[in-house]
Amino acid sequence: MHLPPTDRPVAASVVEVRSYELDSFGHANHAVFLNWLEYGRFAALDQAGFPYHEILARGWGIYVVRLEVDYLREARLGERLLVRTWADGYRRTSMVLAQQIVLEDDPAIEVARARVTAVWIGPDRRPLRVPEEIRHVLGGEIAPP
Amino acid sequence: MHLPPTDRPVAASVVEVRSYELDSFGHANHAVFLNWLEYGRFAALDQAGFPYHEILARGWGIYVVRLEVDYLREARLGERLLVRTWADGYRRTSMVLAQQIVLEDDPAIEVARARVTAVWIGPDRRPLRVPEEIRHVLGGEIAPP
Amino acid sequence: MHLPPTDRPVAASVVEVRSYELDSFGHANHAVFLNWLEYGRFAALDQAGFPYHEILARGWGIYVVRLEVDYLREARLGERLLVRTWADGYRRTSMVLAQQIVLEDDPAIEVARARVTAVWIGPDRRPLRVPEEIRHVLGGEIAPP
Amino acid sequence: MHLPPTDRPVAASVVEVRSYELDSFGHANHAVFLNWLEYGRFAALDQAGFPYHEILARGWGIYVVRLEVDYLREARLGERLLVRTWADGYRRTSMVLAQQIVLEDDPAIEVARARVTAVWIGPDRRPLRVPEEIRHVLGGEIAPP
Repeated sequence: MHLPPTDRPVAASVVEVRSYELDSFGHANHAVFLNWLEYGRFAALDQAGFPYHEILARGWGIYVVRLEVDYLREARLGERLLVRTWADGYRRTSMVLAQQIVLEDDPAIEVARARVTAVWIGPDRRPLRVPEEIRHVLGGEIAPP
Repeated sequence: MHLPPTDRPVAASVVEVRSYELDSFGHANHAVFLNWLEYGRFAALDQAGFPYHEILARGWGIYVVRLEVDYLREARLGERLLVRTWADGYRRTSMVLAQQIVLEDDPAIEVARARVTAVWIGPDRRPLRVPEEIRHVLGGEIAPP
Repeated sequence: MHLPPTDRPVAASVVEVRSYELDSFGHANHAVFLNWLEYGRFAALDQAGFPYHEILARGWGIYVVRLEVDYLREARLGERLLVRTWADGYRRTSMVLAQQIVLEDDPAIEVARARVTAVWIGPDRRPLRVPEEIRHVLGGEIAPP
Repeated sequence: MHLPPTDRPVAASVVEVRSYELDSFGHANHAVFLNWLEYGRFAALDQAGFPYHEILARGWGIYVVRLEVDYLREARLGERLLVRTWADGYRRTSMVLAQQIVLEDDPAIEVARARVTAVWIGPDRRPLRVPEEIRHVLGGEIAPP
């Protein structure tokens, strides 16, 4: 079910688990996964023609309004993780991105899965229509209203 | 629906949004909420007789395996937030905690809601039965197997 | 030598060491101290009439250009720490703040000492003269050019 | 003066500035540099035969007791930074590592310089003699007592 789709682009980013990301249980703290996932999402937007600095320059914001994460396996120091990101669906002012983290060396081993809903915010701090180009490049379903 | 229950204890912790928790959109980054929620959960465990240092001293770990967060409102610099935590349910080796963040000054204003599933891990790194005292003190339903 | 001075204001902030601030050595990671120190510095600026939101609203930045920190003692989970901040000196576009972290319950026990040099940056991203009011309120020596 | 030496090994690590490392001034927060520097130091220790997991497995800790950092230039989103680390000197239970951050693409541009003093701590939480192999591999002066 959470397999990356084959009918639309899947952005791929690599992160390595670093010493300062470990907590006192000796593994990457669960909050750190959100940083890696954010990194993966901005990589996907960049590939769709919206690099982060461009988003900031326009006075836009992209605010996470909902997230679901399943942690399937610990992430340990030095492991290289592949973060995959793709579009899952859209409403008028929001988009849902699906994400998956696997071991770079052994992508059959899943580390985490996520679904993140984000809204686009304009310079007036009000929701903005998701840019046409994003849907065009990333693909994915448009949810019924 | 996400109102704190009245039939079991609700732990309350206060955090203040600090400068270094802001991201380049000028509000608290969504990952920072997980830190506050973690702080709230350990406060709840502490009240149930399991302070964090005791958990570490026994060689136990408490690993988040699933989380869902709804972000309802931005958290801005200097705001004081009340983090409420209560037990939602249990399976043999896991527990589900429900959490809510509201403004301390105006608790009718919700900032976020969360449900977090965590497993207890023993010194051998295998799942541990959730301690009886936890269920006894925190209350909450036992899920059917 | 690093005693807080008696001839100028000393801002005081309290932080409590939280679970997510621990690293895999089980104590607060050294980088986390910089967060606490930043929190203390903005409290001092706030007391001098320059709250953070005002600084951002004017398009200003305050950039750290040099820091020295001595770590004198571990900071452990749950400890309440008092962060003291005072002005040490000024040049035209920079200020030096001295800071000290002690145990709130037992202020004779020093946890860390720091000296932080920061420059004020204007909306054009060029150094700005340190506002007169800051020197007036915080006191401290003006360094020879 | 802060040029990497030619008479001993210089460890090199690369980091890329990520979105979640920016603060509300839109550049990497100064505390984040400490994370990058820590990453560079563990890379140096790894090259000297002391990988982090080995240090933890022996029950050792490496505690930072003093740091000095000069911030010479902002670090901006997406920039790739080269972190260089080398031994500067030793006392019986401590070592001083010197570090430099430059742009990977243009190493003549310095971003930061640091000197970090760390002590080695044994399983009994008491200072430990710096392992002979570290000095042997990393080189650097032994300070007079």
